[in-house]
Formats: sequence, structure tokens, C-alpha cells
Amino acid sequence: MARFSINILGCGSATPSLRHLPACQVIDFRDNLMMIDCGEGAQLSMRRMKLKFSRLNHIFISHLHGDHVLGLPGLLSTLALHGKTGTVTVHTFPEGIEILKKVVDFFCREPEYDIVFQPVDPAGGVVYEDHAIKVTAFPLYHRVPCVGYIFAEKPKPRHLIGEMVKFYNVPINKLHGLKTGEDFVTPDGKVIPNSRLTTPADPSMSYAYCSDTIFDHRVAEAIKGVDVVYHEATYIDADAQKAHDRGHSTASEAARIAIEAGAKKLILGHYSKSYPDESRHLAEAQLIFPETILANEGLTIDLL
Amino acid sequence: MARFSINILGCGSATPSLRHLPACQVIDFRDNLMMIDCGEGAQLSMRRMKLKFSRLNHIFISHLHGDHVLGLPGLLSTLALHGKTGTVTVHTFPEGIEILKKVVDFFCREPEYDIVFQPVDPAGGVVYEDHAIKVTAFPLYHRVPCVGYIFAEKPKPRHLIGEMVKFYNVPINKLHGLKTGEDFVTPDGKVIPNSRLTTPADPSMSYAYCSDTIFDHRVAEAIKGVDVVYHEATYIDADAQKAHDRGHSTASEAARIAIEAGAKKLILGHYSKSYPDESRHLAEAQLIFPETILANEGLTIDLL
Repeated sequence: MARFSINILGCGSATPSLRHLPACQVIDFRDNLMMIDCGEGAQLSMRRMKLKFSRLNHIFISHLHGDHVLGLPGLLSTLALHGKTGTVTVHTFPEGIEILKKVVDFFCREPEYDIVFQPVDPAGGVVYEDHAIKVTAFPLYHRVPCVGYIFAEKPKPRHLIGEMVKFYNVPINKLHGLKTGEDFVTPDGKVIPNSRLTTPADPSMSYAYCSDTIFDHRVAEAIKGVDVVYHEATYIDADAQKAHDRGHSTASEAARIAIEAGAKKLILGHYSKSYPDESRHLAEAQLIFPETILANEGLTIDLL
Repeated sequence: MARFSINILGCGSATPSLRHLPACQVIDFRDNLMMIDCGEGAQLSMRRMKLKFSRLNHIFISHLHGDHVLGLPGLLSTLALHGKTGTVTVHTFPEGIEILKKVVDFFCREPEYDIVFQPVDPAGGVVYEDHAIKVTAFPLYHRVPCVGYIFAEKPKPRHLIGEMVKFYNVPINKLHGLKTGEDFVTPDGKVIPNSRLTTPADPSMSYAYCSDTIFDHRVAEAIKGVDVVYHEATYIDADAQKAHDRGHSTASEAARIAIEAGAKKLILGHYSKSYPDESRHLAEAQLIFPETILANEGLTIDLL
């Protein structure tokens, strides 16, 4: 079972269609679910993908357009009806908190769980952090204030080499230090380098979510070094002018961001309804960045 | 093509599931669409059933629980993005208007069409009327204020018997009177009874929507004489206590209402998610009222 995966619940734009639902993804990080954007129908897609309501703890909203938010009242009210306990934290801009609180207070009376609204600064910054992951917002460049989010797994412990630890008689209270990369000093002052006692930690993965935005080098700069990038690709090259006029990107622009950021994989999404399918998006992006895939409802991408 | 039909977009209860969507129906009356309740996903179901956004003019809300309302912000905002013109009138209780206006103002900026909120009196009364149809609200008996709606086609003109009209030399300006049932008086004062000049009008059909409500004889009284009744049937007989505790009905109670009202056909809906299917609902209702059918997403019932 993957320990860090991205579930695509919706990858359309503007309005739900029979081909694509509005924006919604769920990060499954070590069995904790974190949602990014919450278009109408998000709760039903969670059921469809067997993502448990009980495990949902955080919802990060990129911006306050309906196709990224309007699934929230229904989802939060369903959680209440399903006896959800604990806390769900909704991260969004202050002006969104104001209106969403009113709706939730009206339609979601007396839930057994706590709904916490956490303001997000459109200029970006750390929005959530625990011992294993850090979530950072960064500005995107759309018609209205908009942020992307980076989900970065924290460094993991190095693996102890059992027989070497035994050979050097390392006491238990020194093991934690070894895992973080410290050398071991024997009672008689001899330094045993960490590399003789441990093997490298498993890689820490990171994921960047970029929707909605016009093509902008500052986005590549902000997400530099992430492993996997989701970048909106509303249009194809032939409609580049439309993309720019409406604060969106083409698939090949998404690919250029992925290259600039040094990413290993690119996921395209937020497709305009004006195309019969997304084969052109994929072809145009892969010409620039071969490690491109298309988001689609129901798709799960395992990072680990 | 039917001139008066009921389209079932959602007939589940409480929360959307993989089997049923929350409450929503669309009346297609002579190519004008009128929605009743608007659960999450209503806009997508309209697309699925090929019901045109451009023809939607009225939305009648039964009560202010999320599963009957939360599709509204997304629907109204999608109408704006689709260049809808004209007016959409949302009929609901004053406290709903207050919160819905705030949401619509926030997420649905500068639509090209007018969104009018029309207050509904929980005690009932005529909520809409034109030359061909009258829509009347009446109280239901749920945990919160709730109304049902009757859609009653107005009487239609009688059919002229062409050869008799000619035989009696009825002047053109008297024809309208004949169609409404007037007798014809010849220039020399002879009275020709209407029945010799016309045949009866086509029947005028009526439909009553009853969701959500506990079993109550006053409902049957309010809808007396309607042709087709939709009545909630959240539970089966074995769960009658649950139904009563939660302000809902069983399928056989729905059947008793249909009989008392003198209806010709009963449509069941608003099913609880606790059953694997609705075969028991149907069987229990048909024992009492054979002309019962099950609502299901995608079903269209032609009244005319």
C-alpha cells in the first residue's frame, strides 16, 4: 500500500461536465487524507474512490472560484451526518472564511466534529506542518488571488546496519542520533563515521499543486526541486491566446514549468470543456517533457 | 413529445450515495423547465438528462436541509458561465433567501441573467401562476418548516366541431366563448347549447410533490384530486418507528396518502441509504396502492 499518493477526484474546469468534474484532489499521506480544492461532487467522488471520510483532516483551497469550493458545504454537512469526529481544518483566504462559515453554520448544524477555518496568506507561507510533512502555500497568477500548495515529506531516518551497531556496541540511547546522521564516538574516543553504521534513508517525496495560473517563471521557482508537479493545462497551443486572456496555461507551458522546476513527473489537468478529449494536451506536453501524464477522475498516482 | 413530464434527477435522502443522488426533480411543462429541490449534483444531472439550462425558469425549494438545497450555488453559477439570459426565480423560505443570496453574490458575480428570490410562506399558497399552470405550496410535516408543491395545469379550451360551427354561422368573435363552454345565441335569439358545437377539452393534469414529511392526513387533504403524487418513502414498514422519529414516512404510508388523495399514480422516493435496493418499498406500497412506481435517477414520467 502506497504511503504517499495523489487521488484525482476532479480535473475539469469552470463547470462539471459529463467528462470531467470540477477541481478536487485527495493526498493520502500515511493514511491521513488531505484534500486540495473541493469542487461540487467531491463527497461523491470520495465514496467512489473509497477514500474514508473519517480519515479526512485538512482541506486546502487554492482560490475562491466556485469550481474549486462549492463541494465544501455538502461535504462538511455529510461528514456531520456520518458521525465524523475530530477536526477538519479548512485552509483558505480570509474572505472565503467569512462566507463559508455562514453557509456551514446554516446547513451543518451541531456537527460532532470541529470545523476549523485557518486563514491562508495569498503571499504564501507554511500552512501546515507535523513531524512527517510540511505543506507550504505559494502564489499563483490567476484573475483572482490564488495559491498552489507544496506537500513535502520531511527527511526520514537512516537505516541502522544491525551487525555493525552490535559490533561497535552502540548503546540504545545513541541509536536515534545514528538515524539522523550523527557519527558514533566509542568510550575510548574513537569516531566511527555514520556511513559505517547506517545506510541512507528512503527518499522523501514532494508534490506541488498548481491550479489555476497563467504561465509564470515564478511558479517554477517556487516549486523548484519537487518530485511530482500537477499543473493546470486548460488549453492547447492553438488556444494560447485564450489561456493568457483568462489567466490559464497551455499544456506545453505546464511542461516548461515542470522542466524549469526540475520535476520528475508532470500531471496535467483543469481541462477546458472545449476539447473532445485531452490527447492534444498530452502530445504537446510530452514533446517538451516526456514524463507527462493526464489526470483523470479516479486516477491514483503513487509517489511512494 | 410529452407536454408535461416529471424528470427524476435525485431521489436519495440525506447525503449523495453511489446509488442515489439528493433530492431534485425537473418538471418539463410545455418546454419550460421548473426544478423542485436542488441537491448537490443537480446541474450535472440536468446535463445527463439533456435538460437545457436555457429553459430553466423556476426553482422551488421544499425546505432548507442541505440535501435539498446545496446544488443551487453551483447550478446558478454554471448558468452564469453558460451565458444564460432571462430570469431564474428561486422560491424558498425567507431565512433561506438571506443565506443563499450571500452565497450567490459571492460565487456568481455579474451573471447575464436575473436571479430573483421569491419568498414562500411555510403556511402555503399560490407561488406561481401563468395562463397555463398554477403552482401552489402546501405545508408538509417535517422536523423543520417544509412545503410540498402542486403543479396544476389550467383547464384547456374545448374543441370546436368545425362543421357545426359552420352550420350555425358562428362569427369568429364568438369562437373563444365556445371554447370556454358558452352556448351560442343565433341572431334570431335561438340558443344552441355548447355541447352541440364542441367536444370536451383534453384533460388538465396535476402533480403533487411531497418531500419530506411524516405521514399526515392533512397532506392527503391538501393534494386531493391530483393525478400523480410523488411522496417520500424513506423507510419500509419494519422501520416505521425510525420514520416517525425522524419526521419521515414509510412506503406504505405514502400509498395510503395516494389513496386518500384519490390519485391515479404514486411515485416513491427519498430512500434511506440503509437498504440494498427499493424492492421492499415497492412491494409494500403496491399492496395498498397498485399504481405505484419507484423513482430512480434518469427516469422521466410523462403526464401528458
